[in-house]
Amino acid sequence: MKDWSQKAAQNLAAVRSQKPLVHNITNYVVMNFTANALLAIGASPVMAHAFDEVEEMVALAGALVLNIGTLRPDWVEAMIRAAQKANALGRSVVLDPVGAGATTLRTSAAKEILAKTKVAIVRGNASEVLALADPGVVTRGVDAVHGVDAAAQAAETLAQSLESTLAITGPVDRITDGIREVRVENGHPLLSSVTGTGCAATATIGAFAAVDNDPLSAAATALAFFGLAGETAARKASAPGSFATALVDALYTITPEDLQDNCRIAGTLG
Amino acid sequence: MKDWSQKAAQNLAAVRSQKPLVHNITNYVVMNFTANALLAIGASPVMAHAFDEVEEMVALAGALVLNIGTLRPDWVEAMIRAAQKANALGRSVVLDPVGAGATTLRTSAAKEILAKTKVAIVRGNASEVLALADPGVVTRGVDAVHGVDAAAQAAETLAQSLESTLAITGPVDRITDGIREVRVENGHPLLSSVTGTGCAATATIGAFAAVDNDPLSAAATALAFFGLAGETAARKASAPGSFATALVDALYTITPEDLQDNCRIAGTLG
Amino acid sequence: MKDWSQKAAQNLAAVRSQKPLVHNITNYVVMNFTANALLAIGASPVMAHAFDEVEEMVALAGALVLNIGTLRPDWVEAMIRAAQKANALGRSVVLDPVGAGATTLRTSAAKEILAKTKVAIVRGNASEVLALADPGVVTRGVDAVHGVDAAAQAAETLAQSLESTLAITGPVDRITDGIREVRVENGHPLLSSVTGTGCAATATIGAFAAVDNDPLSAAATALAFFGLAGETAARKASAPGSFATALVDALYTITPEDLQDNCRIAGTLG
Repeated sequence: MKDWSQKAAQNLAAVRSQKPLVHNITNYVVMNFTANALLAIGASPVMAHAFDEVEEMVALAGALVLNIGTLRPDWVEAMIRAAQKANALGRSVVLDPVGAGATTLRTSAAKEILAKTKVAIVRGNASEVLALADPGVVTRGVDAVHGVDAAAQAAETLAQSLESTLAITGPVDRITDGIREVRVENGHPLLSSVTGTGCAATATIGAFAAVDNDPLSAAATALAFFGLAGETAARKASAPGSFATALVDALYTITPEDLQDNCRIAGTLG
Repeated sequence: MKDWSQKAAQNLAAVRSQKPLVHNITNYVVMNFTANALLAIGASPVMAHAFDEVEEMVALAGALVLNIGTLRPDWVEAMIRAAQKANALGRSVVLDPVGAGATTLRTSAAKEILAKTKVAIVRGNASEVLALADPGVVTRGVDAVHGVDAAAQAAETLAQSLESTLAITGPVDRITDGIREVRVENGHPLLSSVTGTGCAATATIGAFAAVDNDPLSAAATALAFFGLAGETAARKASAPGSFATALVDALYTITPEDLQDNCRIAGTLG
Repeated sequence: MKDWSQKAAQNLAAVRSQKPLVHNITNYVVMNFTANALLAIGASPVMAHAFDEVEEMVALAGALVLNIGTLRPDWVEAMIRAAQKANALGRSVVLDPVGAGATTLRTSAAKEILAKTKVAIVRGNASEVLALADPGVVTRGVDAVHGVDAAAQAAETLAQSLESTLAITGPVDRITDGIREVRVENGHPLLSSVTGTGCAATATIGAFAAVDNDPLSAAATALAFFGLAGETAARKASAPGSFATALVDALYTITPEDLQDNCRIAGTLG
């Protein structure tokens, strides 16, 4: 794990020094928390969803994060427009398919984005990743009802067909680009008691993707960092209100050295 | 109060074990706080407002919570569609008429929802409840300018004509289904210094209504629990920032036994 | 600074006693935080953006705060409608040009609002203020890339041409009405690590403008109070999650006497 530890530390240091602008088109529930998480890690967040401005905004950004929670059809159009511009400019696009599998709108929106744009990294829970691969999967709302391992084959197949990196988060995160697979063991159960932690993890991947050209490496190191922040927060708080506060604090206080010493990523750094 | 204490404890235990999905169509201001409150109490929140997906989403849910803050006319259509589907499926609908009485849009939206759908429980402050009963009442923004007792007759009349349960919250909450009336004495003044506590109380009622078929009982026990969380938080924090954090913590840490020992509901459990 | 100290204390006491309703048409990211900040300082916040209700809502309010983050074109129409009604009723309008200079939509929206309505106070960072004055200025997202002093001349020119008060916030805030200029030295660097602190400062100006007819004085005293809250919070917290909580607490606990003793405003109170 030596290589991964160094890579994680290097990526966090690069985010802190480069302060990449991360353009988010995300859901109403998590906008504030996502922006605060990105500020805490050292990135510069901007939220903008108007069809008329997303191209200009993404041109200023180091990465684009799309999140389909609280979706409406016109938002999908803006997301596709922004992602196509990001593709043209060579900026990474990260997709969080919140609630895919729960409703037709969400599943088809995620698939339309994946079909019409080049998404570098998809980060979802097991149920969401399964729903993208298999139209027969029905999930319940936005929480996972499947285990991570049950979605691993779907993730590998999707990664190959989409030429993307798929990151399934859960007790152990599994990330694959269709060839390589890595596992991230950092994290804490309380993360699932705070809304938007998955979305903030996706945004963190966006920030890391702005400084690391390898999507697998960006996703794995970002998830290790975010998971470590959860572990750090859980040492200060045992209930979700104070845990959420401590989580933002940890995203700010964890140093590259802390991350190097404590990240738990298994798999070969390619 | 023995019966009420047991009923409250039983409902909280049922929410924790069944983790009902609560579908919220709610205002932008409180989406994050409401989702975190529902997660803390043990329910599973989902926010979805697109006309194209609300029927599918509510079909997955145990209850539907409608909240008319930051309203736009097209949201009302989605709320009515979702509520009619919930009615058809036998799921409870809870309405929070935020700002009814302040503008024509809000008053008429609340009335249209009540006319076109079957709402099991309406939770509002005294001014909002009065505005639903009397078109001459003008409120100021979203905060109550009337006392709870001044709205009690209006609540009883509305409960009878709508065949709903009306819950007026304030220093002492009054809940009536037009026949029975109960009062909940749990609560703390700091709750009114944090935005969205009323909305989160309404969402908590939604979670309790998903596990308790008696709307009066669901509303009273949910408000006792939420009020007790306010009391618990106030023992840890004396200003609204830290109080809000402690409130979410308390929604997570209060056990059914704590609630049984400390809930203060007066009136006959029918 | 004796006069300023007394004026600041007087304004805070007036907000606490009069509890002015502040009508906000603001961005999704900061709605919750802004509402909580306004409640903490003692004002009564309401968020309403529907074209059909903004005139009625602003008629109930003591001030109107417009904020163009997460903008869409139809929101601009509602903002203009609300501001024209506020103008007709003699209520102060405060504008936060979030992201002006980043995209054409934002820059032109801010300019359209300024052209079609009478804005009493504009509060922005240096980049935003420069962008309003000079179409050639390009900013990066919503964070300032220029220093406050670099924007001072632009602020003075804008203040004169718009007959408005311009407030540039940064390490030292500069506020001018085109004739007088004052500087506010209160504040703390951690404020820039929490999303929405600028927006909440603007909303605080709105609350102070509801009780003080002099826009320069309302803006300067509000910013001194908000900055002092940042200083107070920084004595309790050194990372942004807990700092944000402590900031809301400080907005609630700082007394007029505290503000009188600790506000640092330089310049002549006219």
